[in-house]
Amino acid sequence: MNREQLIEQIFKKQSFLCVGLDPDIRKIPEHLLQEEDPIFEFNKQIIDAAAPYCVSYKPNLAFYESLGVKGIMAFEHTVEYLKKFYPAHFIIADAKRGDIGNTSTMYARTFFEEYNVDALTVAPYMGEDSVTPFLQYDGKWVVLLALTSNKGSHDFQLTEDANHERLFEKVLRKSQEWGNEENMMYVVGATQGQMFEDIRRVVPHHFLLVPGVGAQGGSLQEVCKYGMTKDCGLLVNSSRGIIYAGHDADFAQAAAHNASELQQEMAIELEKIK
Amino acid sequence: MNREQLIEQIFKKQSFLCVGLDPDIRKIPEHLLQEEDPIFEFNKQIIDAAAPYCVSYKPNLAFYESLGVKGIMAFEHTVEYLKKFYPAHFIIADAKRGDIGNTSTMYARTFFEEYNVDALTVAPYMGEDSVTPFLQYDGKWVVLLALTSNKGSHDFQLTEDANHERLFEKVLRKSQEWGNEENMMYVVGATQGQMFEDIRRVVPHHFLLVPGVGAQGGSLQEVCKYGMTKDCGLLVNSSRGIIYAGHDADFAQAAAHNASELQQEMAIELEKIK
Repeated sequence: MNREQLIEQIFKKQSFLCVGLDPDIRKIPEHLLQEEDPIFEFNKQIIDAAAPYCVSYKPNLAFYESLGVKGIMAFEHTVEYLKKFYPAHFIIADAKRGDIGNTSTMYARTFFEEYNVDALTVAPYMGEDSVTPFLQYDGKWVVLLALTSNKGSHDFQLTEDANHERLFEKVLRKSQEWGNEENMMYVVGATQGQMFEDIRRVVPHHFLLVPGVGAQGGSLQEVCKYGMTKDCGLLVNSSRGIIYAGHDADFAQAAAHNASELQQEMAIELEKIK
Repeated sequence: MNREQLIEQIFKKQSFLCVGLDPDIRKIPEHLLQEEDPIFEFNKQIIDAAAPYCVSYKPNLAFYESLGVKGIMAFEHTVEYLKKFYPAHFIIADAKRGDIGNTSTMYARTFFEEYNVDALTVAPYMGEDSVTPFLQYDGKWVVLLALTSNKGSHDFQLTEDANHERLFEKVLRKSQEWGNEENMMYVVGATQGQMFEDIRRVVPHHFLLVPGVGAQGGSLQEVCKYGMTKDCGLLVNSSRGIIYAGHDADFAQAAAHNASELQQEMAIELEKIK
């Protein structure tokens, strides 16, 4: 999916919500455990319930890998299901990959040729040749970690160099030599508040993928105040706040309810950039 | 496997060789493609052939994930095979994971509880809470990226802060607050030459996992000159130089030959610290 199509979906659906599909077998409703593939069944119901309110889904590979072969099958089925029934939704594989060139090339093939997702999260620590193999695919995206939502983001990402450029700013600046607004986004945690202003100084137009609203404590309004562009420029992710909104037979309705509430808040924010 | 056991193996076998199991279905000998699980068959023969000359194996997850469910099964079978027949070999899953705490916890469970490997490579960009979930297992290791072997290592890892501390040095220093010599190693590329001196100033005793000898151009002698400690303190990895030493029916003998040559060079280096 290209940038124009993504923006079109956002304004059409009045939503820039990304739903994180992080299914934990110990947290999903008990009645699903009788299913042949409980994780896929859980995802399917969450996807159907949230689809009217979101433009993107973000399965986090850790939760699938933890179940071995069964988990990988659940991931494959989830992506197939999305591509078949929700082709206008943007699929981000949250895997935070990144390795030397020949290894990143293997990962790129896996995610962009085999699974055929739209985007992959990538860690920047290893630099240019660890990222560029992911940028060789038309209509596919790298979502590069910049300033993450967790406490540990302070350990290295905020380190200033002699010119007072912080590491996340260097990542933003430097990576623009490798990709552009059509094939790169950045992860910026919702918990980072006013830092969005600093980020927009370096990447005024790029899309930002924003985790951390909800369970991690970030505020949607603050993110929009400092991070939104005239094209929206944001995909705001919620995982636990939606997929674990309910714990019983009605979990999908509860997920739809919470997704719908976020969508309504988002519509208000989109109103402001009309 | 703990530090003492690893050191014992190194001196017993006169080797600190780690063999990288990065099997590419398009590069393995053609006659194996008829096997039910060509990747596992390839690995099995390489493992058997190289076992007398190495102390460690390092499967790189990218190469398994690229084959979907089949690849993950090949990875699982490889690890099972190693644990059953070569329990004294140190198994490093090269996956370069690292995410917010609850996600790193999932990855830790996968690699240390399900697959039960000895060590996992981890990317430091997201800081403390992305790394510490991997440090909660007795006898298990984090191998943290510090100064990698690729060209892109220059992009961020060498960035100096206002106090002239480079990012990789900060990673080395800071991470010692989270782990110790018994549960952390660092990735330092063989291509980094004299930088090993600087690294040993910050981590004089930690084990270093050193990729980049062979296909990537690093020198074993230089690595040892600047990086070796009285306990050896090095695991030097070779992947392509061993597993693709031959391309025909005799690929395993060719692998054994190249592994044996490296082992002999290593024995000479170990002689120097006696």
